[in-house]
Formats: sequence, structure tokens, C-alpha cells
Amino acid sequence: MDTPLPTPDLIARFSAIVGPGHALTDPADQAPYLTEWRGRWHGRTPVVLRPGSTAEVAAICRLATETGTPIVPQSGNTGLVGGQTPDESGREVLVSLARLNRIREVDASGNTLTAEAGVILDTVRTAAESVDRLFPLSLASEGSCRIGGNISSNAGGTAVLAYGNTRDLVLGLEVVLPTGEILPGLRKLKKDNAGYDLKHLFIGTEGTLGIITAAVLKLFPRPRARAIAFVAVPSPDHAVALLNRARAAAGSDLVAFEILCRGGLEFALTHLPGARDPLSTVSPWYVLTEIVGADDERARSAMETVLGDGLEAGEASDAVLAESLEQGRALWGLRHGMSEVQIHEGGSIKHDVSLPVGSVPAFLAEATPAVEALVPGCRPVPFGHLGDGNIHFNISQPVGADKAAFLARWDEVNELVHGIVARMNGSFAAEHGVGRLKRAILPTARAPEEMALMRRLKATLDPAGILSPGRVL
Amino acid sequence: MDTPLPTPDLIARFSAIVGPGHALTDPADQAPYLTEWRGRWHGRTPVVLRPGSTAEVAAICRLATETGTPIVPQSGNTGLVGGQTPDESGREVLVSLARLNRIREVDASGNTLTAEAGVILDTVRTAAESVDRLFPLSLASEGSCRIGGNISSNAGGTAVLAYGNTRDLVLGLEVVLPTGEILPGLRKLKKDNAGYDLKHLFIGTEGTLGIITAAVLKLFPRPRARAIAFVAVPSPDHAVALLNRARAAAGSDLVAFEILCRGGLEFALTHLPGARDPLSTVSPWYVLTEIVGADDERARSAMETVLGDGLEAGEASDAVLAESLEQGRALWGLRHGMSEVQIHEGGSIKHDVSLPVGSVPAFLAEATPAVEALVPGCRPVPFGHLGDGNIHFNISQPVGADKAAFLARWDEVNELVHGIVARMNGSFAAEHGVGRLKRAILPTARAPEEMALMRRLKATLDPAGILSPGRVL
Repeated sequence: MDTPLPTPDLIARFSAIVGPGHALTDPADQAPYLTEWRGRWHGRTPVVLRPGSTAEVAAICRLATETGTPIVPQSGNTGLVGGQTPDESGREVLVSLARLNRIREVDASGNTLTAEAGVILDTVRTAAESVDRLFPLSLASEGSCRIGGNISSNAGGTAVLAYGNTRDLVLGLEVVLPTGEILPGLRKLKKDNAGYDLKHLFIGTEGTLGIITAAVLKLFPRPRARAIAFVAVPSPDHAVALLNRARAAAGSDLVAFEILCRGGLEFALTHLPGARDPLSTVSPWYVLTEIVGADDERARSAMETVLGDGLEAGEASDAVLAESLEQGRALWGLRHGMSEVQIHEGGSIKHDVSLPVGSVPAFLAEATPAVEALVPGCRPVPFGHLGDGNIHFNISQPVGADKAAFLARWDEVNELVHGIVARMNGSFAAEHGVGRLKRAILPTARAPEEMALMRRLKATLDPAGILSPGRVL
Repeated sequence: MDTPLPTPDLIARFSAIVGPGHALTDPADQAPYLTEWRGRWHGRTPVVLRPGSTAEVAAICRLATETGTPIVPQSGNTGLVGGQTPDESGREVLVSLARLNRIREVDASGNTLTAEAGVILDTVRTAAESVDRLFPLSLASEGSCRIGGNISSNAGGTAVLAYGNTRDLVLGLEVVLPTGEILPGLRKLKKDNAGYDLKHLFIGTEGTLGIITAAVLKLFPRPRARAIAFVAVPSPDHAVALLNRARAAAGSDLVAFEILCRGGLEFALTHLPGARDPLSTVSPWYVLTEIVGADDERARSAMETVLGDGLEAGEASDAVLAESLEQGRALWGLRHGMSEVQIHEGGSIKHDVSLPVGSVPAFLAEATPAVEALVPGCRPVPFGHLGDGNIHFNISQPVGADKAAFLARWDEVNELVHGIVARMNGSFAAEHGVGRLKRAILPTARAPEEMALMRRLKATLDPAGILSPGRVL
């Protein structure tokens, strides 16, 4: 970036768009916008702008393009790859979408909800529930992340297996282009082949091609009952076979199919207060699965068929079906504790990768001995969303080893694992996007022709290069 | 188009790419490629090229861009909007994808199938069935349409309610750009946030931004059992309420929810051999619905719950559940006959529109008296995919009126209906795309900012303007 620092006069012109109360220059007022919650990314900005309307966002973009001023949109500031915080240069104007926080419409009969970009995900979910509908997107950060950020990062979460990624939950978008034009695409149609479907330019492009200001979201029926089971499986191959059996039996009523290894379960039993092994069988691998249904009997009956047939076919060696809500929560607690319990075992080198579902067993079979050979004594603790092919391939340090020395090998281990992922046509960025963190990896994972087309799109939509510079590309 | 006619030398250069046996210049050989099956579109071409590989497609595109020669890709030649046939100028080189007809891989465990663009849809479906999987895309033309065309037109069909449009069935694409670069995007991932998701530039853009040469498709479990019901409903509002009830009870096991009016049913009873009224109740509206399940008992039980509760709530006034495969086929026969039976009633002015599902009742309530006022005595026969908001709003001529005089009012009636659709934020092109037929309507249905962005995308990807000129834009 060789852009000069914005002049006080230019800052005043930006500030006038949103009004004095909504242009923050005081360091104390700016602080929450400049640091990511884990403290990994810090930045500086001449001004935090808090526009109150789509028209104000458009005016900001026009001025930014006219003057070549870099701007960075920020939604809930919960991103993990440094996309939403300004850089250290002090040149990037931060545009917070937090004031665009109205739910414009809830259409229960049409199963849609229209929300502005700054509505918190939890608020969307609650508004859907208030009309007896489900908005299925669910993330650890749902109490603070905002829907505009969820859409621009194409967030994943725990309901992808049945409902898809965020992209699949969006019917229409209102977007401001970097050059200031407003695209009024808040359509509620399930079928529409009238011209190019422009919304896909903005979903998952991490705020580099436009600023999403509002969205029409799909709503779904609320599941009435849940059956949750914890299953011992001999191998990842058996787990994939059981997954296909469960899909065949339950269709999209199969809402979760998570895999855990024995090592991870043992960490949980050691470190999670009150954790108990759900099964008497010791198994190298486990599956946590959930099937929903119109009533308890139907959900349980579908699950019992899957488990019974899976045991008979040898895909499972033991299984327990939760008999109560509390027992179901305890089973989920083991899965949700997987990241936390690794903290107690020292340093952990992490990967958030995805693979074709059928290739997950081959990936685990190759990556596990490979990292064990690279770092003797290390303890791979893979777990994740098998149903989506999304594995959190985390590696705990050798027992008694020096934590810093282990973590110093992060890039080396990453490179090894991402190399295997690439050869198996997987992705190094399953859920979290590219942002600034993984920008250098992207060209290693895409063909030159693909990189060139991404850059041509960027130049076409953002000719002045002012929107989220240095993110993704 | 002020492009000159291609010279013999240029034709020879194009022909050399595919080899002499696959460059057709003889009128008899060309004929099947130049006329659309209904005979509505005829064209001329200097040569039909039948490339046998992606590399040959790329070489054709490079030469076309270098020499400014317009080219038109053609898949199964089943499109309804004139996109795939060359125009009358005799300048457009036709590129048939029919020889790219290999299924490259069927991955049952990973639930994917990789097919070249020229594979016939029926062949894809059969290959999926051979490994006990479902590829759900299903169209009247499935015996001759090819998957590349299905994808580039984002085809709809009868399984959209549960499985989505074609866009939702595609995981990865291999594409040749107009400038000749090959994008090798045949990825099989359910989660992938590594950079821009470029495939959406080519799905539903009707061959104007690139030529799809192969695709990774999603496979699904095959449903084991089906419950099919024919239901009398007092009004479209009641039908929408029943739809929401069925979705809540059956989730994505609800695979069809079609609406018919009494007038349409009477046409069927009059003109379809052996057709019988499934119900003794005469009702202004009917619904044909289908729920799948793991076995007969579950599918029937889910359907019985929906029907029982719907009758009790007054959303339905009568219903019959098919007791046999044959009875189920007879019920579907009434629905599938809706287009054909209108032929026997004289001229019919057609619309293929979509609306937010919740707005379908309001659309029917406004459009029906509007066309009756415009053309006194005309007989609206609306029917279609209520679950997708997709209504075939067809209007049969007044009894005894002159057919030609009635059909002469086509544009006038279209304008009235499409105006109502536009005000209700619907689409004039639900399933069939824009092509050449509806190109003039598109700018009336999209904002100038949206049209401008579509044109900028076109210019970015196809700077020489050689690919499918005059289609969509």
C-alpha cells in the first residue's frame, strides 16, 4: 500500500456522511473495532464509520473510490483470519455494519426472513423461532457474529450436513459495490433464471467485491424431536459406510455426523469435569450422530434402525442412544470439548481442512503417520464434521516435550498436511476463509488460470482497489 | 453483429482442431443442430464442430477470440429460449459438446459423480442408480438433454422442492473461458472457502461466460418408498398452509407439492384417456403431493399425519392416498397431462413465472381477474410447483373464439401478467432461462445497476464478445 494517510479534510468528508456521533476517532471508542477477540490481530484506523443506512454505505464507497482511500467493512468482528480488522498502516477506514441491525421482515408462510447485515445471528435465530421456524446456521460465535459477516465469509457451523453452508441459506442480497452503486437484489424466489445470479459474487468473497447490507434468508420447519447416539466404529472407512447408511435411512433428518478418535475421547475423560465414557467398548474411533423427526418415536425409530443395521453389518461395534435430553447433552459435551481439552495436553498445531467425504479415511491414513514421522512422539487428535468431509486435524505435542519448540514447527507441519490435502483435492480453508492469514497459501491451492480470473473479477468490481485490500488476493 | 462471414481459410483452421470427421459442413449433417425440436428456432452455421476433448474446446475458444468469430455451444439442443441454435446470419460457428460424453468417475461412498458436459441426463441418473444412489434432477427432456446444458441453464424440473435447482447439485466444474483458458475446478468438496467460488459464474449464465466441459455432481440416497396423495383444498391460501404443514412433518422427505385448479382437472377428465376424478368432492383447487421414506409404512404414516391434521385444520376438504404404484401413477398422470390437455381446448397463452411462495395466492387472486378482464371469456388454467413458487400461468382461449385472434394477444397478455409478477418481486423466467426469446424482458426486470454489472462481467470474461452473442444480454 503506497496510499498516503487520509488527510483531516478527507476524514471530515467521510465523517459527514454518517454524522458526528457515528464517526469514531477517539482511541478508546475505536478500541473494540481494532482488535480481534483472540488478540491475534491488531490494527489502526483514522476513523471508524458507523453508517445507519444502505445509502450511507453507498456514499462511503463512492468517496473511497473517488479518493483512493482503502476501506474495510466489519460485521461482528468474530472472523478468525484477520479479514475484518484494519492493518497496521493507519490508512484503512473501518466501516462497521453494526447499526444496520433491523430485521426488515419475517415471512413465516413464505419461509423467509429479511435482515440487515448488522443483525446478530442469534437475533435472526430467535426471530425465526418466534414464528415457529428454524434458521439453521449455528456457530460458536452466534451471540456476537452478525449475518453480513456470516454471508460474506460463507460460514459453516454445525448444521451444514442437513442444511448446507451459509451460501445455501441465502435467497437474495442487497449489496453496495466498491464504486457506490446499490444492487437491490432482495428477492425471495426459489426459482429464478432471469439473467446472471449476481449474489454469488458476494457470498464467500470476504468483503472484497462489495459490502452486503441486507439479505433474504431461508427459514425451515423446526424439528420437533431429536435422537442422539454415540457409536464405536472400527475405522474411518466403517464410519463413512455408517454415514451413508444413516443418510439413506434418514435423508436430511440426519443433522449431525461427527467423528472422534480414541485419543480425543481419552483427553476428554481426563480433563472434562464429570465426563464419562459412554460405552464399555474401547474403540479406535467413535461417531456422534443426531437424527431429527416429527416426534420422539419417529426420530428414535429411525436411529434404532441405523444402529441396529450398522451393528449387524459390522460398521459399528457398539452404540448408545441417549435416553434423555441430559444424556444427549453429555454426549455432545464430549464432542464440543475436543478443542478445549487439547489445551491441557500442551501445544497443539491445528488444521481446518476439508476433503471429498470418501477420501477422509485415506487422508487420515496418510497424514497421521506422516506427522508422526516428522515429529516423533506427537499425538494427532483428529475430529470433526465427517458428514461434510471437514476434519480438524489437530496435533498435540509429545508428552513432556518443550511446548515452544513444538509450536515452532507449525509452518512445517502445516505444509506437510496441506500438501497431502492438496494431492487429495481437498481444501486448506474449509470454514474460516482466507482473509490475511492464509492469503499466501491460496495461490498454491488454485490454478494460475483461477487466480487470474479472481484478480480480473476484483479489478472489474473494485477498479480503484479500495475495498478490503490485501484480503484473499 | 457486423462480423464478416468466416472465410473458407478460417473454417479450415477451426476444422483442423477437431479433425475432418468432426467438422460438419454438409447441410444434411448440420440439420439436427440447426433446428430446435419444436421448430421454433432455425439457424445457419458455416460449420458444426464436434470437439472430442476439453483441450479442443479450449483451442476453438482461443481461435474464436483471436479472430473475433462468434461461437455458440450446444449441448442436448433441448432449450426452449433459442440459446443453443445459431442465428440466421450464418456467421456463428456451432460447438457441439455431444462427444464429451464420458462419465469420468462414480464415487458412491463420497456421493459424487463426475461427468463430461455431453453426457445425457438419463445416463447420469442411470449411472447413479447402478451404485444405489439418486441423481435427483429430472426433466421431461431427460432422455436427450445433456448435463452441460442443464448446468449452464440451471435447470429446474420436478425435484427442486427437496433437492434444489441444478445449481445446488453441482460441487465442481471444469470450464473453458472464451479466451481459451481452462479452469480445472472439478472439486468434490462440501465445504471450501479457499478464494472466490468461480463455478457460480457459469451455472445459469447460459453459455455466455464460458463453456462447461465437465462437472462433479452430488448424489443422494435413493428413496425406498413413496406415498402419493391427491388433496382437495379450498383455496391457494389453504394450499400454502398445507404445504407448510407437510414441510414441518416431512422435512426434505416432502419431494413434491403441486397445485392444480378445477378447470385444469376438468380438461384432464375430458381429454386424457381413462382419466377419473380421484375425489367425489368438487373443489376449486387441488394439490398433488408426494412424501418419500425409508419404507412404505413410514412414508404412509407421515403422509397420513399431514392429511389428517390438514383436514382437521380445514386446510384440506378431502383427500385420497394412493394404495398402489398404479394408482400413484394415475394421480401423477393428471398433473403431467396439464400442458397436453390444453392443446385440445384451442390456443393457450403461457407464462413460466415464479413468486415468493407466500405470494402465490395473491398473484393468482390478482392475475386471474386481470386476464379475464383483458380477454373476456378466456379460461386461466394455472398449475405448477407450488412448493417452489413456480406457476405455469397458462390461459386457454374463450370457447368458440378464433384461435389466431386469441394468440395474437400473446404479448399484451404477457405484459400484463409479467407486470403483476414484477410488482410482487417475482420472476418472468423461473425455469427456462432468457436465451434470445426473453432478452428484451430482462432489462425491465432488473435494476440498471444489475444490468450494468452483468455487462461488465460479460466484457471481463469475454472481451472479444465471441461466446453466445445476443443471448441473455
